[in-house]
Amino acid sequence: MRNWILPEYVQDILPPEAARIERARRMLLDLFQVHGYELVMPPLVEYVESLLSGTGRDLELQLVKVVDQLSGRLMGVRADITPQAARIDAHLLNRRGVTRLCYAGSVLRALPANLTGTREPLQVGAEIYGHAGPESDVEIQQLMLKSLALLGAKTVHLDLGHVGVFRALAREGGLADALESDLFRALQAKDVPLVEDLTSGLAAPIGRALRLLPELYGGREVLAEARRRLPPLPEIGQALDDLETVADALEPMVGELCFDLAELRGYHYHSGAVFAAYVPGCASAVAQGGRYDEVGSAFGRARPATGFSLDLRQLSPYLPEVQPRTGILAPCLPDPALAKVIESLRAQGEVVVVDLPGHEEFRDELGCDRELKFQDGCWQVLPSRRT
Amino acid sequence: MRNWILPEYVQDILPPEAARIERARRMLLDLFQVHGYELVMPPLVEYVESLLSGTGRDLELQLVKVVDQLSGRLMGVRADITPQAARIDAHLLNRRGVTRLCYAGSVLRALPANLTGTREPLQVGAEIYGHAGPESDVEIQQLMLKSLALLGAKTVHLDLGHVGVFRALAREGGLADALESDLFRALQAKDVPLVEDLTSGLAAPIGRALRLLPELYGGREVLAEARRRLPPLPEIGQALDDLETVADALEPMVGELCFDLAELRGYHYHSGAVFAAYVPGCASAVAQGGRYDEVGSAFGRARPATGFSLDLRQLSPYLPEVQPRTGILAPCLPDPALAKVIESLRAQGEVVVVDLPGHEEFRDELGCDRELKFQDGCWQVLPSRRT
Repeated sequence: MRNWILPEYVQDILPPEAARIERARRMLLDLFQVHGYELVMPPLVEYVESLLSGTGRDLELQLVKVVDQLSGRLMGVRADITPQAARIDAHLLNRRGVTRLCYAGSVLRALPANLTGTREPLQVGAEIYGHAGPESDVEIQQLMLKSLALLGAKTVHLDLGHVGVFRALAREGGLADALESDLFRALQAKDVPLVEDLTSGLAAPIGRALRLLPELYGGREVLAEARRRLPPLPEIGQALDDLETVADALEPMVGELCFDLAELRGYHYHSGAVFAAYVPGCASAVAQGGRYDEVGSAFGRARPATGFSLDLRQLSPYLPEVQPRTGILAPCLPDPALAKVIESLRAQGEVVVVDLPGHEEFRDELGCDRELKFQDGCWQVLPSRRT
Repeated sequence: MRNWILPEYVQDILPPEAARIERARRMLLDLFQVHGYELVMPPLVEYVESLLSGTGRDLELQLVKVVDQLSGRLMGVRADITPQAARIDAHLLNRRGVTRLCYAGSVLRALPANLTGTREPLQVGAEIYGHAGPESDVEIQQLMLKSLALLGAKTVHLDLGHVGVFRALAREGGLADALESDLFRALQAKDVPLVEDLTSGLAAPIGRALRLLPELYGGREVLAEARRRLPPLPEIGQALDDLETVADALEPMVGELCFDLAELRGYHYHSGAVFAAYVPGCASAVAQGGRYDEVGSAFGRARPATGFSLDLRQLSPYLPEVQPRTGILAPCLPDPALAKVIESLRAQGEVVVVDLPGHEEFRDELGCDRELKFQDGCWQVLPSRRT
């Protein structure tokens, strides 16, 4: 076994791509900053109980676990930064009003999400805590769409759902936890035969409504149809109203907007409006998020919350190229005048590469199209003879 | 057990500190870029064999290990990015000339380095591959000193050593591996009685020279004394010449320069000049590095190498404050004219925070000293009434 081979679904990011990703990371964090989002850096590892608080079993299976040598307790490498940000909002910042946080960091998953995926997404995201109304859903989704536009996405397809519709039906039908869980999964997988099967024993109006959910996919007409055909529960009415508000605000920013009332985003932790953004050429969502008002309560302080995140590794092939900065080759001499010229060029943002002695034949690898030469009594930047 | 408590020596980085660290991270990567260093992002986990290649047992004890669910093999969370960069140089870039790489990322250690430390250093560093002479040692140490100056360090104390002196003595004395290892550790710990004990059975000139090493600490006179009192082995002469060259170039940049011929930096992987930088008020080194020509050979392609790294978490208390940017509070209204003004302010770098409805009494938490008001027929930025 060669000891320089990486595990499957684990990758290095090499120079041209790393520069692209670093630039995108900075652009996003700067965008979040001017919107009032404060940067936090939660740790790579925490006790498993905190990482899984309020998140359900899906995330547990994704967690890489290790024994803490100091406490003997089980720690996990984070698989998602969102619950960490919720913990920070609930217990470290302790603000009473609206708190906006953002983050950028690697997370680790025991298995890749799909065959083209990575086990180490570079998660960048933003969250709003303390506000329950659709205005914060609108703000966070607008921020997601601005992020994608900033990264170069020209047309975005947005899928909008609302976990409240399914939750209201499950509660009204008195579904046992196990059945609710199975149905949740079947709906998320759009497995219509399984949904039929699981709902066959339920009372007619609830069973029929649950079987209807996978059909409630499409444009604005879906909301009208849902109002007509779903049971008149107040939570469902509220969910549809919220979706309408969000859609009104977002429609001008997207290429296509679809409602999907069977869309129940991962991890079981969402509680309200959920959304996913797609770009042409990429089968899986490039950014996603939703409302998760219950997560804070697992940390002893319930706060409404909504947020989005994206994976810069997944987006990397779609990011605009960073034009490689060509450099200036400088001789390796202990000359103070030369050193001064070099530092002044670097202060202007020029890349100046010192030509370490003994490697003249490999100069082409250094990416320089100019060189510093002593001419007419001073050091001057001149075009390289060979370019 | 409250589920929001973090493991010992694991910390969140909260808003004011996170902004300071993010700024420092960008400043360092930008500095490396204008010096011709290319950014790489190696993965968080690799097979244990690659992470430990050429690095010795110290690092192995630091490694947090997990079983790869896909291969059944043991993976480690990186405890040091240097061997990863060496792997990338040796096998992915495959250049023949000089390659300069840099990186910034979290690493994880099973135990903290000391009682004030963290188990998750934020390692930022730079490496030169392919050049064996003292010129690259000078370049990398100058880059380290420029980095510390950029982060605000006013006086730096630099310790310079050279692993070649000890290695030459060990080889000349025919030391068994176990004894060499024990002596290495005793010298690194400056445990003079143990050094006396371990060398008591050795032939007189080598034993005496090894016992002398802990005394060879101080200014330039140390080099003269070493030339006079150490055996005249060619490797030792070369090491002392190299130290002199490096010292000549660095002396103008540091507050104090000390030679320490018993300084044998960690991990057993260094092979030439080694160095550590200290700032007033901090007992442990704030940046360190050295030459490690042997690491590449573990990946099947020996390349000379020298590099340095620092931990931004450790440096964080010494970083200059980022002046908090006060924001402009904007009402939450679906008014296109207002939206246009907000976006134009944000494009100029202003922080504009939307006042989500229902939280008026907590506005003070938002850090805004101005607000957008509709006055005289247009939206204007005015001072907040309450500041």
